[in-house]
Amino acid sequence: MNAADLAKQLGDLHTELNIVWTLLTGFLVMFMQAGFALVETGLTRAKNVAHTMAMNLLVYAIAILGFWSMGFALQMGGVGPLGTFGQDPTLSHELAIDLGGRSFGLMGLRGFFLSPDVVTPGVATLFLFQLVFMDTAATIPTGAGAERWKFTSFVLFSFVSSSIIYPIFANWTWGGGWLSTLGSNLGLGHGHVDFAGSSVVHMSGGVMAFVVAQQLGPRLGKYAPDGSVKAVPGHSIPLVVLGTCILAFGWFGFNPGSTLSGSDTRIAVIAVNTMLASSGGAIAAFAYTKLRFGAPDVSMMCNGMLSGLVAITAPCAFVTAPSAVLIGLVAGVLVIRASLFIEQTLRVDDPVGAVAVHGVCGAWGILALGLLADGRYGEGFNGVPGPVRGLLYGDVGQFLASCIGIVTNLVWVGTVTFLAMKVVGALVGNRSAPQHEVDGLDVSELGGPGYAPDALGRRRPSAAVEAVDPTSRILLKHP
Amino acid sequence: MNAADLAKQLGDLHTELNIVWTLLTGFLVMFMQAGFALVETGLTRAKNVAHTMAMNLLVYAIAILGFWSMGFALQMGGVGPLGTFGQDPTLSHELAIDLGGRSFGLMGLRGFFLSPDVVTPGVATLFLFQLVFMDTAATIPTGAGAERWKFTSFVLFSFVSSSIIYPIFANWTWGGGWLSTLGSNLGLGHGHVDFAGSSVVHMSGGVMAFVVAQQLGPRLGKYAPDGSVKAVPGHSIPLVVLGTCILAFGWFGFNPGSTLSGSDTRIAVIAVNTMLASSGGAIAAFAYTKLRFGAPDVSMMCNGMLSGLVAITAPCAFVTAPSAVLIGLVAGVLVIRASLFIEQTLRVDDPVGAVAVHGVCGAWGILALGLLADGRYGEGFNGVPGPVRGLLYGDVGQFLASCIGIVTNLVWVGTVTFLAMKVVGALVGNRSAPQHEVDGLDVSELGGPGYAPDALGRRRPSAAVEAVDPTSRILLKHP
Amino acid sequence: MNAADLAKQLGDLHTELNIVWTLLTGFLVMFMQAGFALVETGLTRAKNVAHTMAMNLLVYAIAILGFWSMGFALQMGGVGPLGTFGQDPTLSHELAIDLGGRSFGLMGLRGFFLSPDVVTPGVATLFLFQLVFMDTAATIPTGAGAERWKFTSFVLFSFVSSSIIYPIFANWTWGGGWLSTLGSNLGLGHGHVDFAGSSVVHMSGGVMAFVVAQQLGPRLGKYAPDGSVKAVPGHSIPLVVLGTCILAFGWFGFNPGSTLSGSDTRIAVIAVNTMLASSGGAIAAFAYTKLRFGAPDVSMMCNGMLSGLVAITAPCAFVTAPSAVLIGLVAGVLVIRASLFIEQTLRVDDPVGAVAVHGVCGAWGILALGLLADGRYGEGFNGVPGPVRGLLYGDVGQFLASCIGIVTNLVWVGTVTFLAMKVVGALVGNRSAPQHEVDGLDVSELGGPGYAPDALGRRRPSAAVEAVDPTSRILLKHP
Repeated sequence: MNAADLAKQLGDLHTELNIVWTLLTGFLVMFMQAGFALVETGLTRAKNVAHTMAMNLLVYAIAILGFWSMGFALQMGGVGPLGTFGQDPTLSHELAIDLGGRSFGLMGLRGFFLSPDVVTPGVATLFLFQLVFMDTAATIPTGAGAERWKFTSFVLFSFVSSSIIYPIFANWTWGGGWLSTLGSNLGLGHGHVDFAGSSVVHMSGGVMAFVVAQQLGPRLGKYAPDGSVKAVPGHSIPLVVLGTCILAFGWFGFNPGSTLSGSDTRIAVIAVNTMLASSGGAIAAFAYTKLRFGAPDVSMMCNGMLSGLVAITAPCAFVTAPSAVLIGLVAGVLVIRASLFIEQTLRVDDPVGAVAVHGVCGAWGILALGLLADGRYGEGFNGVPGPVRGLLYGDVGQFLASCIGIVTNLVWVGTVTFLAMKVVGALVGNRSAPQHEVDGLDVSELGGPGYAPDALGRRRPSAAVEAVDPTSRILLKHP
Repeated sequence: MNAADLAKQLGDLHTELNIVWTLLTGFLVMFMQAGFALVETGLTRAKNVAHTMAMNLLVYAIAILGFWSMGFALQMGGVGPLGTFGQDPTLSHELAIDLGGRSFGLMGLRGFFLSPDVVTPGVATLFLFQLVFMDTAATIPTGAGAERWKFTSFVLFSFVSSSIIYPIFANWTWGGGWLSTLGSNLGLGHGHVDFAGSSVVHMSGGVMAFVVAQQLGPRLGKYAPDGSVKAVPGHSIPLVVLGTCILAFGWFGFNPGSTLSGSDTRIAVIAVNTMLASSGGAIAAFAYTKLRFGAPDVSMMCNGMLSGLVAITAPCAFVTAPSAVLIGLVAGVLVIRASLFIEQTLRVDDPVGAVAVHGVCGAWGILALGLLADGRYGEGFNGVPGPVRGLLYGDVGQFLASCIGIVTNLVWVGTVTFLAMKVVGALVGNRSAPQHEVDGLDVSELGGPGYAPDALGRRRPSAAVEAVDPTSRILLKHP
Repeated sequence: MNAADLAKQLGDLHTELNIVWTLLTGFLVMFMQAGFALVETGLTRAKNVAHTMAMNLLVYAIAILGFWSMGFALQMGGVGPLGTFGQDPTLSHELAIDLGGRSFGLMGLRGFFLSPDVVTPGVATLFLFQLVFMDTAATIPTGAGAERWKFTSFVLFSFVSSSIIYPIFANWTWGGGWLSTLGSNLGLGHGHVDFAGSSVVHMSGGVMAFVVAQQLGPRLGKYAPDGSVKAVPGHSIPLVVLGTCILAFGWFGFNPGSTLSGSDTRIAVIAVNTMLASSGGAIAAFAYTKLRFGAPDVSMMCNGMLSGLVAITAPCAFVTAPSAVLIGLVAGVLVIRASLFIEQTLRVDDPVGAVAVHGVCGAWGILALGLLADGRYGEGFNGVPGPVRGLLYGDVGQFLASCIGIVTNLVWVGTVTFLAMKVVGALVGNRSAPQHEVDGLDVSELGGPGYAPDALGRRRPSAAVEAVDPTSRILLKHP
């Protein structure tokens, strides 16, 4: 074998390692679906468990179809060869407008339905990894709309979010669109930099969640006639904590996997920063609830850990370990203050705190990058020479680009979600009937309870036949 | 370092990457054990949770012993060096018969008890990966036999399934046996091709499940004296959905891992096809139950997703993305129709739908490969030149080989399972006593309830002592 | 590209593969946190689920801070370049004493707070992997102290265990400290060899658990005034089994990952031995409880599987497959005998059996290595030429080193844990108030129940408002 052959083989091995890494981390991100299902279900009432679980399961299936048919093409259809997956020049069709001689990308136009001529190993890898990220965003609103979102409305909205709302913003940030070229076009640092999705995934999810919750209105009984706010406790802390553990586990796919490359040894630093911020968030929420309310709150510790994870997602590759801890600590307090503000001041009913966790702390993560990126990583990011530096390390433009990213996310995602909810509401109605809500959506919308009557309370049914309930299973009600 | 050394090192790196990939994906498959435990337990009644959980836990341990002592040798003892794990010429003993000058393999004969002279890194990797696949098949009957299978009978049967029933069919398809040489010996395409186990794993599990359920007979009260069929609702949808998520996660080990090679970049396409089919299955089951029965059924959505996964398992490497969606959509409807047919027409009581999911949709997956393999992959598969093509892409022989694979699975697995159940039944009895079934198998067979009486119903026991129950823990009943 | 460049790139690829492997297996170990949370919560009562879950969640966050600030430096601050992660000569500060011209390491002194000048990719990888191991040890005492450990005491103790108790012993064994040099300094085999932590992680956790349980005293009602021992049954077998599955899954990170190298193909043998021992443990516990007590005990099968895993952790790389099965079988019986001895003879109340599983079977694992290491692996381990051999393969010194390791662990971890509990107890008190324990720690220490009153018992609350409970959520009690 000569040197050229060896060099070629070495290149192939790098590609193979990168594909293996990106797929495995993508699988971890996919598993976060289980985490979301558990956290949301644990924080809602037992009469709605099947409904909450069903939304979290089906959103994965719906979003796959939405992203396969349209979303992937809109998001990534303009991307050229990535380098890390070998030569894949099969996409590269971006719709852009020219302003003052500069090109600003709006959306991709290639890759619809993953036709065989488009699918190379690199494109398939990219598709899978981007899909599971989109899916994370798509599942966030199910928590904010829990216990009152009509199932059909949820289905239609989820298709729109996965095929249009998310992909367009993702194109702007990750697909070569205009936010990513704010640096090369306008000199604002490296443009809007979001390493693993504090804005693309989490703010998008959080903003969608806010609009969904606001459009649906609060659950019956949440705000009493006298104006007081009632707590609606969830039904199972074990589900919440298990879900949080799964999410924290999956985040090790989310953040380190976003290098799209196992050859980039920065993945180790990214993983450590991720872990440190999760710790900061949980500790801060523990301490804050302990000091402020007299006893630590378990679900707030969970949300605190998740908030730290959301916040470190954008800056994970660019900050020092002490900064990562700090970002988490701030997030852990911020999520509690934001939850209270949304619930009590804005009077928007978000049963699981999705807006505070993903929306507010997602924005904080983008700001944190704009402040704390320390110039040790990101050489040439988004086509701009030099590493990524935040305001505190001397680059004002990078901070401005972060702010533009946040505002753009709010405007785009907020507006289109609002329109989508209005259209879907006009078509099928968004909110469950009051009696359905009172009865619980499991029985009224899904035809049977999420927990059987004998589930735990009674030890020995007096006879096997007693547990046989001819009304509780759809399939047999309609033979 | 000279070129020869470099080439050697490159080869070693490929081997190392392949072992890393195969082990990690094998670990994901092992984790599916948790998914099976949850789905099955959620779909059964609270009085049998410990029993169902215990079967799913212990089958892993039993099957490891069965495969270690005998199964692995029977399945893989005839395999030569695989290439992907470096040079491992330690097995290669296949018992075969000669017919018309052609050799037809029947079973392997080397590797019993993994003695040190047999164990190389490649053999150990192969053992682990094949073991977790076998384990998936071995755990499937526990669902079909749930709520009435005597624990001792289950233990004995599981040893037989893991050491004989599964390994022999696996040898025929994956270990160099006669089904894999239908192509080179008889010109039927590439022989029976089953990329990741729609037949080897899932049909085998489904056929065993059918015979087990049929031999055990229906649960008390399932079929009323007047001939009507009663629904026996499961006790926890959250367990079912969580289990489904875990299974869908583990399937990313199942299918892409079956390359046994991280160097084969087809893994990305395989993973994407897997995901697309899971979506198709869930969407189809959602739509079908919604349209047919008026409300979507959560457990059917779960079974729909699993059916899509089962069906894509054989063809995942060979079909286009649109075909993958189609395969899933068909599976999602098929699983519901098959469930109803088995329950109402055949009057076989399969509490979790294991036969429909794994048996019927496993067969559909093999047929789908024989129809839809598009000729873009599988060059030289099973020693036959050219890629794998299905009937719709011009290869009738491939479709015939698929049909032979299905029939063979039915005959071999069905017959030996029947015999095994008869022998085990004669030895220890297969079915729990009626009173045990009425009381719940947790109390009657395992000595204590799966859920404590205070589990959820009561908030504050009036005194700690009250929750102390001297009768409920075996260890202290017999000091 | 010339040969030198190619060789350099090959070396880089090895480093990258090793980092990818070590990170991914480290992630699996982190996920074991969920397994511990589930097993412990399932084995305790419903009135303490939030408390048990909260300990298992928060210990991860606390321990991260403890290890980041201090523990990592003490444990690994003296380590030189490891080879597998490329050149990382950034630590290498060990405090040692000289005795008779030989140097005995006591603790590392570099790496506090992971300052940027210390953090290379290799150091970050090492930090993450060592952290999740430490975290496993830190979480074990939460089971032994369950249902009565004051939350503040738990928090303070966990900081001490993660920053001092664990890291010092880990330094002695894995960080170049004196136990690891017993071979080169005193000729005792390869010194104290513990491949993946039967002593460093599990015995440390088990010894801490014993002292914590003993210091806290038994739960109210556990030992009746007449001297009889009462069973306090856990509340959910499904949680226990799911947790066990997650732990067994995570152990595939624990043991094979401990090569710190994906290039070491021994990982396959390690994974297989791990699996075989887990099987032996579960089978033995099944058979023992079935034969001795008349019915198999599910929670004992789980503890049996975990015991097999704990015991194989030290010897996994060094023993044959039949030895691995044997190690597991012994562990599965040992854990039951030890549980009964601790509960009935020592009268120490360990609600989940943590001392028997991790402490006793951890020690058994170290002994097993000293007996059964077969000389096929470990060339040059701890700087001593030749492979690792146990007593039965001719090396008495190796067995002595194992014994010294066990005694040292008992003395160091036992003493410092005792002192830490005394100091923490003097500061904040270790044990919850009796009335809090009677009421359940969820309500009394964390401000709300772990399961809502409507969790499962009632199917349809008569009105949504009924499920709104203004007293149950901390955040709204203090607006």
